[in-house]
Amino acid sequence: MARIGVLIGDLFEDSEYTMPAEAFMNEGYDLVHVGIEAGQTVKGKKQGTPVKIDKAAKDCSVNDFDALLIPGGYSPDQLRVDDHVVRLTREFTQSGKPVFAICHGPQLLISAQVLQGRRITGWKSIVQDIKNAGAEFVDQEVVVDENLVTSRHPGDLPAFTSTCLEMVAMAEAA
Amino acid sequence: MARIGVLIGDLFEDSEYTMPAEAFMNEGYDLVHVGIEAGQTVKGKKQGTPVKIDKAAKDCSVNDFDALLIPGGYSPDQLRVDDHVVRLTREFTQSGKPVFAICHGPQLLISAQVLQGRRITGWKSIVQDIKNAGAEFVDQEVVVDENLVTSRHPGDLPAFTSTCLEMVAMAEAA
Repeated sequence: MARIGVLIGDLFEDSEYTMPAEAFMNEGYDLVHVGIEAGQTVKGKKQGTPVKIDKAAKDCSVNDFDALLIPGGYSPDQLRVDDHVVRLTREFTQSGKPVFAICHGPQLLISAQVLQGRRITGWKSIVQDIKNAGAEFVDQEVVVDENLVTSRHPGDLPAFTSTCLEMVAMAEAA
Repeated sequence: MARIGVLIGDLFEDSEYTMPAEAFMNEGYDLVHVGIEAGQTVKGKKQGTPVKIDKAAKDCSVNDFDALLIPGGYSPDQLRVDDHVVRLTREFTQSGKPVFAICHGPQLLISAQVLQGRRITGWKSIVQDIKNAGAEFVDQEVVVDENLVTSRHPGDLPAFTSTCLEMVAMAEAA
């Protein structure tokens, strides 16, 4: 069964974690919550959803997961100051395994310097950052560019989640 | 007496507003709080400091102020989705009048596309965004490049605030 690494920190956008997470769990996939410090509990910015960090990024490698989920809100801003989170994001994206990022999630991909020449979307506030990172910004509900799946905001969650599920199923079948 | 425009939105870093604001008021300067919607009250992210928006950015021009202050926290992320705030930031910076930005404040300068070839600093999480915008990132408590004054975080506030005061005094004397 697939193992999904979730890169998550304080002030994540609750629904951008809960909706894909529930869909993954319904499929029987394992979720591993990865953050700056194992054992810490981080909280969502609107509903205060608590999430316990299972593993620090410094103790994770690409081989630990089959796909990576990066919820938005202000969680990516908190995570991108940590060199281990950025290193894991870079190595995982470069490995070709699926990476799912929504809203402010692409901020981590910018810090990981993996967006040159890629086609992605993201939240309106970071459009200029996405373009400056060398990516083509596409204003649609879900954008798939090889292993990168990106969406703009919670309104895109149904399309984002179903695309994530398809990508994991394809990766498992391969 | 000098008029200082303060570009401010929800979840600003309280001290990055209150400390320079108090210093400006002690000098007898007028503060005009500029945001997305006039009459709205925005709040700080740690102490919940309330700030009433005096004027919407869409009703402001470069001539309305002698200097611009951009506190950090998540306020700049909220403001940069508004085209009028971005336009005012661009026109003001290009006018050569002093612009003071701390922590996440440079995010607005990135959206305004005014950082090509400039030397600035800012909060650790946005270092890659600053570099990608064409600026040279300098890791020191306060960086002055012509009309741009930038600092990294609340710990830099004493140096930031005194440099802001000097710049306004110089602009008034000119």
